[in-house]
Amino acid sequence: MIREVAIERVDGDVRKPDVDRVVVEAPLQLRARGAPVATIMRTPGHDLELVRGLLHAESVVAGALAQADEDAVDIDVDPSAFAARGLLASAACGVCGRVAIADLERRAKEITADTAIAGPVLAALPDKLRAEQAVFAATGGLHGAALARVATGELACTREDVGRHNAVDKLVGWALASSLDPAAHVLVLSGRAGYELVQKAVMLGVPIVASVSAPSSLAVELAERFGVALAGFVRDGRYNVYSHAWRIRL
Amino acid sequence: MIREVAIERVDGDVRKPDVDRVVVEAPLQLRARGAPVATIMRTPGHDLELVRGLLHAESVVAGALAQADEDAVDIDVDPSAFAARGLLASAACGVCGRVAIADLERRAKEITADTAIAGPVLAALPDKLRAEQAVFAATGGLHGAALARVATGELACTREDVGRHNAVDKLVGWALASSLDPAAHVLVLSGRAGYELVQKAVMLGVPIVASVSAPSSLAVELAERFGVALAGFVRDGRYNVYSHAWRIRL
Repeated sequence: MIREVAIERVDGDVRKPDVDRVVVEAPLQLRARGAPVATIMRTPGHDLELVRGLLHAESVVAGALAQADEDAVDIDVDPSAFAARGLLASAACGVCGRVAIADLERRAKEITADTAIAGPVLAALPDKLRAEQAVFAATGGLHGAALARVATGELACTREDVGRHNAVDKLVGWALASSLDPAAHVLVLSGRAGYELVQKAVMLGVPIVASVSAPSSLAVELAERFGVALAGFVRDGRYNVYSHAWRIRL
Repeated sequence: MIREVAIERVDGDVRKPDVDRVVVEAPLQLRARGAPVATIMRTPGHDLELVRGLLHAESVVAGALAQADEDAVDIDVDPSAFAARGLLASAACGVCGRVAIADLERRAKEITADTAIAGPVLAALPDKLRAEQAVFAATGGLHGAALARVATGELACTREDVGRHNAVDKLVGWALASSLDPAAHVLVLSGRAGYELVQKAVMLGVPIVASVSAPSSLAVELAERFGVALAGFVRDGRYNVYSHAWRIRL
């Protein structure tokens, strides 16, 4: 459930290579009598229990489950049980139903802009986001996301939602309708940096993602592959850089 | 984006009625030229941006968007664009695609067991969960969930996953294959108590949910309707009870 990754650990203006441990996020394919019906992003382990719980939540009555291989579970049920409810994709919430990696590779392009941000500007972003999160302050229940200008750290737009993916979708929707240059902006996240959030940055063309919390293994892989600098645990002037550290200048 | 709800605020063995503010979580229906194609759970506000961002993430090319009413957005695109990719349900991750409230009402039953837990037992649960979260301790990147015995607070099962819904699905899958009596257990959550997580408790028949963080408006409504005591912000001997406070004895 844990993978070690090479990082640069930054504290103020000091950076040093180090190793960090990230949680593994990997696709599990669900098959109904051999036919693929859905893909769930999950942390490996207890896969049969996961599928049993998911079927229960969705009221799908199925027979035996079997681990087909390390990343696939076969369910003794007619594939139409899934089509009929149109659901399993959604059941995996927080987790992302279908997520076909190959599909993503076809749709997303590597970010080649030579954008870089000054370390102190990056380090100050989470506090700026928090200061703008009015509803979070009142309820403690909201995820926030912002797009910040690389040059100054100024927040161009902030959005909140009970779902962290929604908060980013709202930002992306705003950006698409604006004249904002994505390559000159950082995506700031109030929570963890999962795979889907890095994907949304890639699809918009944002070259830097700064999260106050931990990234997943797949988020790191995706950021590395698509040219995104991914900074995690950005707190109190310190942070870890998981990919493309050249985009952060000290 | 905020709703006030009546709660009981507990500190040690003192409880008093109070009002708390919770973040609103409500369904947004997506329609393709008038035909419903998906439902997203979201915090109201910036709905058109949300849908625009979601379509972008899913590479669905669509024409104009229009707010049909306060909880529906119409998209100028053929409904087959959704069926073809089989996706939108999943795109809303963290958020829960289709979520048909009416459908849920048909599938879930009110919990009528007269289960109650001693306040100090409840207050101690988050620390017990944290102590068992081995991967979280190593990576900071995992959600945890546990089923604890009401009588003693002992943890019957603990699961971790990068997705908080997955962690609970793993628990439910475990419970279904065990001889555990759900009515004698509490669901303990390391994160926020959203609608879907309370739903999973209801469907398993667990009468008490204890979260270290904030609930959403819909989670409170669901807990109230289905007989679940929902405790939030369970920290340092203090917590808020959002529904069925009679299940917590001081």
